[in-house]
Amino acid sequence: MSLATSPTLEQLMHALEHLPGVGPKTAQRLAFHLLKQPESFIRQFAETLVTAHLKIKPCSVCFHLSEQNPCPLCQSPKRHRETLCVVVDPRDVMALERTQNYHGLYHVLGGLISPLDGVGPEQLNIKALLNRLKANANSEPQADAEPVTLIREVILALPPSTEGDTTSLYLTRLLKPTGLILSRIAFGLPVGGDLDYADHLTLTRAMDGRRSL
Amino acid sequence: MSLATSPTLEQLMHALEHLPGVGPKTAQRLAFHLLKQPESFIRQFAETLVTAHLKIKPCSVCFHLSEQNPCPLCQSPKRHRETLCVVVDPRDVMALERTQNYHGLYHVLGGLISPLDGVGPEQLNIKALLNRLKANANSEPQADAEPVTLIREVILALPPSTEGDTTSLYLTRLLKPTGLILSRIAFGLPVGGDLDYADHLTLTRAMDGRRSL
Repeated sequence: MSLATSPTLEQLMHALEHLPGVGPKTAQRLAFHLLKQPESFIRQFAETLVTAHLKIKPCSVCFHLSEQNPCPLCQSPKRHRETLCVVVDPRDVMALERTQNYHGLYHVLGGLISPLDGVGPEQLNIKALLNRLKANANSEPQADAEPVTLIREVILALPPSTEGDTTSLYLTRLLKPTGLILSRIAFGLPVGGDLDYADHLTLTRAMDGRRSL
Repeated sequence: MSLATSPTLEQLMHALEHLPGVGPKTAQRLAFHLLKQPESFIRQFAETLVTAHLKIKPCSVCFHLSEQNPCPLCQSPKRHRETLCVVVDPRDVMALERTQNYHGLYHVLGGLISPLDGVGPEQLNIKALLNRLKANANSEPQADAEPVTLIREVILALPPSTEGDTTSLYLTRLLKPTGLILSRIAFGLPVGGDLDYADHLTLTRAMDGRRSL
């Protein structure tokens, strides 16, 4: 699409088209919106982009994205260190943090086992998880040392999909020998959801996951 | 929403939320996508943004956005200079250029008359349009000078809305005394559209705009 008016504008629209969910139409709308903004906003936007990309890296302990290493969640003395929640993505960490209901530690896998996509356990942060739990088991309480809280429970917060189920099964087998409490988050009808509108897989999960009253 | 992990990440998401149609969820998705890109892409993206914003300005003749002034469309010897098409937005210029069917000149109004939004004729590029047509009328062919093609027709390509109709009416009254041929683009059933699915306003416009065979 050559519009013969501005190569720079086309370059900007082309760059915007690289964003997820942005097609040519949206790229055009975004480009014109950006051109209308004050110069100070644009300069700061560009700077934020570069700075964020430069500073934000995966935490070497939990693989959540942060500009600190270890990340504030791993460092915080307020977190409950007996619980470790395994998630797929840094976005999942943020979703759980928004609930303000979970106060333990995290471990970001970076994906799910998916043989069809060529993703095996070795592509994920599973080895790091094992090393983390091993180090945890080895740190025996010593005299004259500060007491260390050990991880006692591992919660798998992986989605209810084929890949999520496969990865959960894989991790369950791998972690059973450690003797840690293992659990997976519940699946069923979402709050506000209607039985009538739920798909049959969700209903089946809800039925299978029923709890005695 | 403080996630206590990265102020830079929050800053980036906050900046992205300023884009049209981008809420907190999309901003998060965009931010994580951008963080995954190679550094070279990010640097170039930021540079393109700043450069485009710096270079691209409204053309002083037609008010289309361009990094040249006058813009390539105004300068091009290939354009038919007898026809001037009045549009709302630079995006409309690009839409018409994509059809490769119109070869005349343009004039971008920059908006539509809308008393409810406090937009009067003086906020739009209407005065510049009048001056442009006046200069056109005054440029009488002179001996020993290159022949100048004069604007003979003004096409109003304004949308079929209350504001579009008001602005068309206003411009019609303003331009009638110039003696130029005035027209407005046709409204009716879109190509591929089905009578059954068209709203009644479109159908009414299609009926009113019927042409003898």
